[in-house]
Amino acid sequence: MSQNTLLHPRADLELPGRLAGSLTATRGAVMSTEDFPGWLDRHRQAHSFRVDRIPFGELDRWSFHPDTGNLLHDSGRFFTVEGLHVTTEAGPHREWYQPIIKQAEVGILGILVKEIGGVLHCLMQAKMEPGNPNLLQLSPTVQATRSNYTRVHEGAAVRYLEYFLQPGRGKVLADVLQSEHGAWFHRKSNRNMIVEVEDDIAPHGDFCWLTLGQIGELLHLDNVVNMDARTVLACAPIGAVDPDRARDPFVAALARSRNAGALHPDVELLSWFTAERARQSVRAERVPMAGLPSWVRGTHSIDRPDSRFFRVVAVSVQAGSREVSRWTQPLIEPLGLGITAFLTRRIDGVLHVLMRARAEAGFQDAVELGPTVQCVPGNHDDLPPEDRPAFLDLVLSADPSTVRFEAVHSEEGGRFLNAVSRYMVLEPDEDEVPLDPPPGFFWVTVGQLTSLVCHSNYVNVQARSLLACLNGMLAGTR
Amino acid sequence: MSQNTLLHPRADLELPGRLAGSLTATRGAVMSTEDFPGWLDRHRQAHSFRVDRIPFGELDRWSFHPDTGNLLHDSGRFFTVEGLHVTTEAGPHREWYQPIIKQAEVGILGILVKEIGGVLHCLMQAKMEPGNPNLLQLSPTVQATRSNYTRVHEGAAVRYLEYFLQPGRGKVLADVLQSEHGAWFHRKSNRNMIVEVEDDIAPHGDFCWLTLGQIGELLHLDNVVNMDARTVLACAPIGAVDPDRARDPFVAALARSRNAGALHPDVELLSWFTAERARQSVRAERVPMAGLPSWVRGTHSIDRPDSRFFRVVAVSVQAGSREVSRWTQPLIEPLGLGITAFLTRRIDGVLHVLMRARAEAGFQDAVELGPTVQCVPGNHDDLPPEDRPAFLDLVLSADPSTVRFEAVHSEEGGRFLNAVSRYMVLEPDEDEVPLDPPPGFFWVTVGQLTSLVCHSNYVNVQARSLLACLNGMLAGTR
Repeated sequence: MSQNTLLHPRADLELPGRLAGSLTATRGAVMSTEDFPGWLDRHRQAHSFRVDRIPFGELDRWSFHPDTGNLLHDSGRFFTVEGLHVTTEAGPHREWYQPIIKQAEVGILGILVKEIGGVLHCLMQAKMEPGNPNLLQLSPTVQATRSNYTRVHEGAAVRYLEYFLQPGRGKVLADVLQSEHGAWFHRKSNRNMIVEVEDDIAPHGDFCWLTLGQIGELLHLDNVVNMDARTVLACAPIGAVDPDRARDPFVAALARSRNAGALHPDVELLSWFTAERARQSVRAERVPMAGLPSWVRGTHSIDRPDSRFFRVVAVSVQAGSREVSRWTQPLIEPLGLGITAFLTRRIDGVLHVLMRARAEAGFQDAVELGPTVQCVPGNHDDLPPEDRPAFLDLVLSADPSTVRFEAVHSEEGGRFLNAVSRYMVLEPDEDEVPLDPPPGFFWVTVGQLTSLVCHSNYVNVQARSLLACLNGMLAGTR
Repeated sequence: MSQNTLLHPRADLELPGRLAGSLTATRGAVMSTEDFPGWLDRHRQAHSFRVDRIPFGELDRWSFHPDTGNLLHDSGRFFTVEGLHVTTEAGPHREWYQPIIKQAEVGILGILVKEIGGVLHCLMQAKMEPGNPNLLQLSPTVQATRSNYTRVHEGAAVRYLEYFLQPGRGKVLADVLQSEHGAWFHRKSNRNMIVEVEDDIAPHGDFCWLTLGQIGELLHLDNVVNMDARTVLACAPIGAVDPDRARDPFVAALARSRNAGALHPDVELLSWFTAERARQSVRAERVPMAGLPSWVRGTHSIDRPDSRFFRVVAVSVQAGSREVSRWTQPLIEPLGLGITAFLTRRIDGVLHVLMRARAEAGFQDAVELGPTVQCVPGNHDDLPPEDRPAFLDLVLSADPSTVRFEAVHSEEGGRFLNAVSRYMVLEPDEDEVPLDPPPGFFWVTVGQLTSLVCHSNYVNVQARSLLACLNGMLAGTR
């Protein structure tokens, strides 16, 4: 197209390669990966963070509604904890009640990127969240609810927010509403954005520039890269990586998986997914939390007498670097370490991931693609073998030689307390992961996942986290 | 890729061209377009269809629930008519109550295609629906709710259904869940499918083979191609059409719009759409229909004293060619002829369509892309100019020389009685449709729309109908 036309190519053909270049780059122009843990520790020590469990009665401006028993903030903003009545037509549990977080407003999770020394770098933040086991983790440039950025809590302004709210301040590379945990949130979604700037930006002290490859390396460390960063990174439309430069055959197969053919063409994948959405039926009705069957409200928690799943608790928070320095809030505290695993298989040299169509009660559209295995094993201890989550025992008993990736990561620390999972990528014997998998499972390439995450409600937050980890394994591939 | 690999290319690169070939073909191998109206009339006359309005008290197996006042079938299947309480933050109407159809189950709208004489033909059905003004219209091969095809009404089997339910009976060309009217349905979606077969199929007498181009020609006729056919046709991934063979410059610009560049790259379109979804807030709570404010239940209808919007009525139906030959059911009857219009503009020779991000109360995801104008003008008569729908007066007063397409089409005749709209494509003076449109509007190409309809909840049913009409204008372009 000539210079004088108003028209643009529909896609930026250079972008996937530029992002791939950042992914393979493990030497940052600003900070080395080796120096990063020290930098994060210095931030942790420089601030006096403190999180204490408190009784619900000590929550400030949060209270149980006298009629419904729902837990809400007296501004009507932030979120509420309500009841949900769920019925499904499949699985060992066909009907249950549970508390759920209702957060109607859409927040922004945004990463600002900038080319430094010819390589795209991400502006990442050391951010405290009360629910994280180690409090401070690496988060996106901006991580803000609408209540945050419209200043309901009258705190400090959100830094760099203007790049995400004002079209034209930068070039948008990705911008998609993505769901979050359907087991704990009712129809929650956040805007996942990546915006490239050319402006000179002097990072505030809590921020640092890292390449995608450096963040990929950090994803191997436990509890360093937070969930919000992982989900945004998964949405980057990263292009081809040269498999000939991979350090081992698995990584070469992973590199090929970004842009090769697939066991199933895209239209078959979409058709299978559509059939799963039409087939799996979940009815979720919001109900008052007062008198919720199987749940008991105590002074410090709302929990089940059998101590399964999770409980609702309250904390008080003191923080030096957040918009307001002291607050109280409810959190959901899952009980037990989760397992979040991709089973993979090389098919004609191209890595494929076994995705599961998961119906979660809080999803907007009932079904999304999740990891092969996603559960807290302890919640399923008393089930007969045929009702246990498919492939769970395979993951729990996996030979270490089949583990290609393993790290413990936390879920959203602003809503969940110590919600940690072991994120794993495994490559079992081919006998154990057949080409024709059980109903509800489907083999896809990493390239196919990358296409799907451009759109809402296809890939759930746990699978996006694992996709970020998979991508991160390509760091240093040259 | 070699013959021995398990891998497939992610996309079938020949398919878009084959569909484009069917679109430009106006000579069918089986029936000429000229003969079609006579064929449809003969079917109309051969059957004794009859639809009569009845009081709610004469509905068979349908009744108002004694507590909620909701209207439901005693099988618990099909659909219910319930109440909805809607609040929004924008527009002249910020809060209202209305009846709404709740139909949780996902149906199938499927078109079977087959290459005949080297050109893809669609197997279309002459189907009676009680709400259509002329009862019999051209419909997809299969148009069935789950209650239909699981035989809740104990009627005859749905012909050709097996091609859509059994993977492998044909090659899936498109398969996507699409929303339907958000003003009248609560979170309704249907599976829109196109499946290609190689089997020899002897069409039953109510079915005929037509090219996409023939159906395109029929879309110029009032009330011939039903809504279900239009929405499925819109999902066909049709490829490039040669603009040099177009019969006029508008059609040439339309042909270019299928695969040229665009005013906005795709990522800008997605980013604008994401921002609109995050910005526009609609809260819709299901409430009992009993005592619904502003609505009165009489013996024959539920309506508003001001006679606006729609009413709920009941009919008895006698039909010779449906799965069961006699039944009663409720219908929603909109009041007044709607206007459904695309405003278009050639930008550097490429046709662009002005889409509106519309929040409709019944949408699953709050906002979808709709036509530039979509309303029943009479519902807005008493509004001050600033509150009238944008561009409505431009459409109503359009110079006939700017009208590129015009036909009256009906909405789903199985749920709506005489729900008809004037579907229009206009090309006003460029002054009236600026490149930088008002908030909530965005210029897109037909190629961009075609990419979006591969995925759920982007393009609403009225815009999909108009997209089918636009595509149909390319019929005969060679």
